[in-house]
Amino acid sequence: MPYLDNRNSIIEVLRSHPEEATRLWVEAGRERTVSAIIEEARKAGISVRVIPREQFARRFQGVKSHACLEREGFRYADTDALLEAIPSMKLPFMSAFDGIYDPQNLGNVIRTAACFSLDAVIIPRDNACGVTEAVTNVARGGIEHVPVGRVTNMPRYIEELKKRNVFCFGLDERAERNIFEMDLTVPLCLVLGGEEGLRRLTKERCDMLLKLPASPGFPSLNVASAFAVAAYEATRQRRGKN
Amino acid sequence: MPYLDNRNSIIEVLRSHPEEATRLWVEAGRERTVSAIIEEARKAGISVRVIPREQFARRFQGVKSHACLEREGFRYADTDALLEAIPSMKLPFMSAFDGIYDPQNLGNVIRTAACFSLDAVIIPRDNACGVTEAVTNVARGGIEHVPVGRVTNMPRYIEELKKRNVFCFGLDERAERNIFEMDLTVPLCLVLGGEEGLRRLTKERCDMLLKLPASPGFPSLNVASAFAVAAYEATRQRRGKN
Repeated sequence: MPYLDNRNSIIEVLRSHPEEATRLWVEAGRERTVSAIIEEARKAGISVRVIPREQFARRFQGVKSHACLEREGFRYADTDALLEAIPSMKLPFMSAFDGIYDPQNLGNVIRTAACFSLDAVIIPRDNACGVTEAVTNVARGGIEHVPVGRVTNMPRYIEELKKRNVFCFGLDERAERNIFEMDLTVPLCLVLGGEEGLRRLTKERCDMLLKLPASPGFPSLNVASAFAVAAYEATRQRRGKN
Repeated sequence: MPYLDNRNSIIEVLRSHPEEATRLWVEAGRERTVSAIIEEARKAGISVRVIPREQFARRFQGVKSHACLEREGFRYADTDALLEAIPSMKLPFMSAFDGIYDPQNLGNVIRTAACFSLDAVIIPRDNACGVTEAVTNVARGGIEHVPVGRVTNMPRYIEELKKRNVFCFGLDERAERNIFEMDLTVPLCLVLGGEEGLRRLTKERCDMLLKLPASPGFPSLNVASAFAVAAYEATRQRRGKN
């Protein structure tokens, strides 16, 4: 049974996608602590089940909060439909991640993509972390704001994006050009590797490789942090500030 | 016994601060897998102890790598000395975090601070995560590149920075001014909250509050990601690109 235990994530689902919520579980004696969540559930017409503490602990092992939202399984976005939608997008702003393994990183990436209003997050179907409970909880509700799609062949999907005039820029610490030297106010897909950088085949498909203005002595950045920087830079430029 | 198990972190210490390394422990039968680390240890004059698999597993529980570097405990930077050093710094670039609890976040913050060549990371002595083994490992060697200091009273330390002409800019999603509208090419301390945002007293001491160009519908960003963006923006401006 998929569920959410983070307060913000729960409220986000109840407000934006109540049809995906099945039931709210609350620990008896803690109704006041989570009263805001209970109220949202009532408003959304989702049933609330208060159960004894021991039963709550058994059902939601390791969870530290006092309310959990049971929900339908996560639905990935249709990546073919996404390609078809590109011509109708105002200024496409997508991102592709070539193999993130750490749920913490993927969750943060999704949260950041939501924060900077990206149109999509593309991840590989195999050999990478998918959208698990942990990912959803780390994303703090961000998963409700950005479509996440999976593809079998990342290099080929990048080709498809390029055919539709989306510029695919890869982030690579060995690139020659700094990200702020590049015009990002174009139809854009930011391409990042997982924890170990871009894979060769994916890198080769990119229109251009860009680096961040990092210290030469320590150019290493966490993938979620690097993505936050790149997504910010594109957003800044798109607001007419470059 | 403090130790490092991350490959990059180990190599970083062996190269930059071998005097802090005590001994390298290696799992028998895996010497080839970790040969690069063993070589670095030999170069640095650090003794290498190869021990049977079961013994290695018992000594370093939960560790997935095959080599661990035993080291001296982490030494925090002297925050008073840091204040004294400010007048001699070319263009101070510091950061202060008012209560990060998650080691993953603190580790990523330190890694990012190293990547963008910050002069210091200031954290609270109490009610916050300190520099633990987990933090050091997440920072992937970044801890060797940036001083981390602890203070008892964060608002007062910010006052001290301001007295020395360091501008203290707080990040707050409810701020009116966007970060890219502000001149960050000044003596600077970026002030961030922990997972729950800036505390009131700390916020009040800031010279100015700045926000990121986030989606109004989902303005929330992980603290380490928000810091990466802010540190990048300051770095970009300092490279004369604003």
